[in-house]
Amino acid sequence: MPQNVVVVGAVALGPKAACRLKRLDPESNVTMVDKDTLISYGGCGIPYFISGDVSDPAQLQETSFHMLRDEKFFREAKDIDVLTNTQALSIDRDKKQVLIENVSSGKRDALPYDKLVLATGSRPRTLEIPGIDLEGVFAVSNMNAAIALKERIASGKVDKALIIGGGFIGLEMAEALTDMWGIETTVVEITDQILPGFVSRNMAKIVQRHTEEAGVNFRLEERVQRLEGHEKVEGAVTRKETIETDLVVVAVGVEPNSDLARQAGLEISSRGAISVNNRMQTSDPDIYAGGDCVEVVNLITGTPGYYPLGSMANRQGRVIGTNLAGGSAEFPGAVGSFVVKVFGISVAAAGLSIDVARREGFDAVSALVVQFDRAHFYPDKDLMHLEMVVERRTGRVLGIQGVGSMGDGTVGRINAVASILKYKPTIEDISNLELAYSPPFSAAMDILNALGNTADNILAGNNRTLDVDDFDELWRNRDKEDVVFLDCRGRPNAEPFVKSYPLHWKSIPQDELRVRMEEVPRDKKLVLICNTGVRSYEAQVILDHLGIQDTCNLQGGVACLKKWGLDLA
Amino acid sequence: MPQNVVVVGAVALGPKAACRLKRLDPESNVTMVDKDTLISYGGCGIPYFISGDVSDPAQLQETSFHMLRDEKFFREAKDIDVLTNTQALSIDRDKKQVLIENVSSGKRDALPYDKLVLATGSRPRTLEIPGIDLEGVFAVSNMNAAIALKERIASGKVDKALIIGGGFIGLEMAEALTDMWGIETTVVEITDQILPGFVSRNMAKIVQRHTEEAGVNFRLEERVQRLEGHEKVEGAVTRKETIETDLVVVAVGVEPNSDLARQAGLEISSRGAISVNNRMQTSDPDIYAGGDCVEVVNLITGTPGYYPLGSMANRQGRVIGTNLAGGSAEFPGAVGSFVVKVFGISVAAAGLSIDVARREGFDAVSALVVQFDRAHFYPDKDLMHLEMVVERRTGRVLGIQGVGSMGDGTVGRINAVASILKYKPTIEDISNLELAYSPPFSAAMDILNALGNTADNILAGNNRTLDVDDFDELWRNRDKEDVVFLDCRGRPNAEPFVKSYPLHWKSIPQDELRVRMEEVPRDKKLVLICNTGVRSYEAQVILDHLGIQDTCNLQGGVACLKKWGLDLA
Repeated sequence: MPQNVVVVGAVALGPKAACRLKRLDPESNVTMVDKDTLISYGGCGIPYFISGDVSDPAQLQETSFHMLRDEKFFREAKDIDVLTNTQALSIDRDKKQVLIENVSSGKRDALPYDKLVLATGSRPRTLEIPGIDLEGVFAVSNMNAAIALKERIASGKVDKALIIGGGFIGLEMAEALTDMWGIETTVVEITDQILPGFVSRNMAKIVQRHTEEAGVNFRLEERVQRLEGHEKVEGAVTRKETIETDLVVVAVGVEPNSDLARQAGLEISSRGAISVNNRMQTSDPDIYAGGDCVEVVNLITGTPGYYPLGSMANRQGRVIGTNLAGGSAEFPGAVGSFVVKVFGISVAAAGLSIDVARREGFDAVSALVVQFDRAHFYPDKDLMHLEMVVERRTGRVLGIQGVGSMGDGTVGRINAVASILKYKPTIEDISNLELAYSPPFSAAMDILNALGNTADNILAGNNRTLDVDDFDELWRNRDKEDVVFLDCRGRPNAEPFVKSYPLHWKSIPQDELRVRMEEVPRDKKLVLICNTGVRSYEAQVILDHLGIQDTCNLQGGVACLKKWGLDLA
Repeated sequence: MPQNVVVVGAVALGPKAACRLKRLDPESNVTMVDKDTLISYGGCGIPYFISGDVSDPAQLQETSFHMLRDEKFFREAKDIDVLTNTQALSIDRDKKQVLIENVSSGKRDALPYDKLVLATGSRPRTLEIPGIDLEGVFAVSNMNAAIALKERIASGKVDKALIIGGGFIGLEMAEALTDMWGIETTVVEITDQILPGFVSRNMAKIVQRHTEEAGVNFRLEERVQRLEGHEKVEGAVTRKETIETDLVVVAVGVEPNSDLARQAGLEISSRGAISVNNRMQTSDPDIYAGGDCVEVVNLITGTPGYYPLGSMANRQGRVIGTNLAGGSAEFPGAVGSFVVKVFGISVAAAGLSIDVARREGFDAVSALVVQFDRAHFYPDKDLMHLEMVVERRTGRVLGIQGVGSMGDGTVGRINAVASILKYKPTIEDISNLELAYSPPFSAAMDILNALGNTADNILAGNNRTLDVDDFDELWRNRDKEDVVFLDCRGRPNAEPFVKSYPLHWKSIPQDELRVRMEEVPRDKKLVLICNTGVRSYEAQVILDHLGIQDTCNLQGGVACLKKWGLDLA
């Protein structure tokens, strides 16, 4: 007898699981229910719909061959029944049925199932502050909310916007509002950096600086205490100020929608996500779950992680579909890859950031390389910043992050490492990583290989580094500390600095260092500096050899200082 | 006592090994010798120098911070002695010295060594045909040859050019001559496809077609028998014709320069390359070798392979430098990654092509996916073609290839797979590969994941495919065969084909198939077709379920036919 499969949720994972099942087992009867009227849309496209890159919300709901994925499509092309506008109220696991209710008519019904799939997704975290219910306050949680937000912007009444939350959605929305609509936008972030928990402070600073230059304001370490306004929102009050605004977007993350599962007595994690095994089964083997409502294993730490991403949902959906059809597919876990594009630069990462690695108990160090993304003689190129986090004792690679203007090039480097993270690579694997080489795409020694080499030199103690934020500290206290900044670049590069800071900035080009040794101060700490950190490393090696060892090498060099906003000269 | 290290060859691997050694062991005395006057240049940049993208040959010889890597640079910045214009004549392994000769003066000398590095590189294969020594015949083997070639082109006397060899250099040179200099260029290739041994016939055809559209002529399965001309070359004679030309570029590959090693009695492979272990030591443990003159293990087949690439040389150079300094670095072998950019499209690959896999004894199948490289709703996107080669019995991934207009996006996909090939991944690893996702970079189900899924469906027997070249055969014989081409796309797409070929082309959109089953011919072989192969696969599943199983699904669909040049409508 054909099996009955019910799928609760019809946005990303639900349709994927249902369609995969039907291809493998065309006899099965599949019913999807969703409380919304719009289904099977690319939710990650919402910021591009807001910006206008995507003009019609239907585009997010279409297949690549321009068929609208609505009820009719699933019925005719996929042989799947869809009940929209229908809420799943509860699961009766004994009777194996789902109680559903039509949201408009209130009519209730029971759907019997042999297997059930929970694809209930996530909901935006809310803020419990006064004024949150004022008109003009939005969360970009689903298509209908996005349509309402865009209508408000398009009405022309929005001159100023405030975004609460400096994460992915916050940044994407900041670009959409500023770049396409000319709205003066301020992002308020509660922690001391944007993209907290995802990238290092160094990377975050580079992205923030770039976004500021594009016109977005930031308030870090700041909390919106209340929203003010009469008929609609007019201001946001923080500890320090009141920020005038016509629009507020709340983008403080999402949390798993696991109420239905919890009520049914399924195992729920401390984070509130549905627990699943690597076949994506919940604690009830007849009930599968995946996507934004579940946790999966982090392949670096071995502990559960939460990855609300459309790409995860799609891959997990296929695993569920295969297993529903009697197969035995597994979802191995995640390394937490991501990329976000903001005003022409892209920041991408996989694995653990340095802060997270240390928080997870790793004795971790971080290597930074700034290098051209193509052969340096190729005309069309730009500097890329890559940072790798490694375990000191073992040389194991824990994570990688990158920022660059060639977005595909940046994400390509991250993906090359993301792909191998589950195999527990060491630094040597990165030094020897075999990337396809040609001058329009990379240097003969690709930046990734250079990153492995740099990490190797750091762990060997040959490259003793200084991060930009520590440089910043040292620089601000340069009068109090016994420190000299030794510029290893050619004279023309160093001269303006020497002129501005004669007491602290000294110029000896690296290739003159051997013959000008007597000029090197021996009683002070030396901060070695060049454009990107390559020649200053070379200088450090020479100085070591000559017995001057109280030196450190500014990782990323002047290129990194500039990106940070520390333009000293 | 400090060790003496002699390095023969100062282009890519030699300098890398020497500099790495000096950083780890500054005491050592290092001497590099090179028979040329120009050293340490990026040879892979030569086609870009010819095209004019790189205007000055010195750019190929500079560091990224614009220092010329000449003798003075190595002396002052690196503490390395360089003897240019100096040929290494022979090695006396008993006395541990290298006999050298100044090319200009003929003066000879003996350089004692504790360790020796052979970085003798490769030389262009030559053609033993009449006329090969005529003026106007070039091999792009080194900087001085490239400079001479460019001078000739810049003289304005070259209207027509002939390139012998349809490999990487041949294609890059074809672009340089056609695109930047407006020279009518013909490529003669002895095999039946361009990039033979590197990509499938399918991929080769796509690249060839694109290059033809940009104005380059091809003669495949053709051999230049002799070159004609009076004072300079004027024509190339093949079996079929005489091709007028003012310039001939011979680009028929390179072969290892291993004479010095052979004379010294070191182990040489059947290919003529120096044999090394994974520490890059030759059969004499005091002599290291790397770069274009050695073979290394192919990590897919386990047998030796030859990879004359600047990127390999750089990575191997570092391994040698570390080992010279007493370390124990290893070079694991290669998977043969490459990329080449031709007229705005890029073709990249890693591992084995389908032909090579079969030649190596694998029972291999090939899966092809044509899909947008970004989210299909993102405005700026293009179709990418990816092909994966897998072993039928085990599902092991043997290789991947791709063509696309977003070069970094294409090479990024290839690199993600190249990186894991040494871990012997299976199809499931590709289906679950965790690439960083965001609409400007990929679809939620990335083309790589889709490729894994397609391969999975092929091996499961659910997706029975037809390749474009087999389609081509079937199409040309459509009157003789009992075959119907069933178009599964929407009516507007199918109609022009139905009109042109009413006997053979039938239109039933995939979503109407279930209700129009009686229209499906049951006595003929069905070739199922859609735009990219997704809906036709879906149709195949439906037909299977209804008992119609003599069907095959055109991989890559009409999109692939068009790229191939088979525009039927």
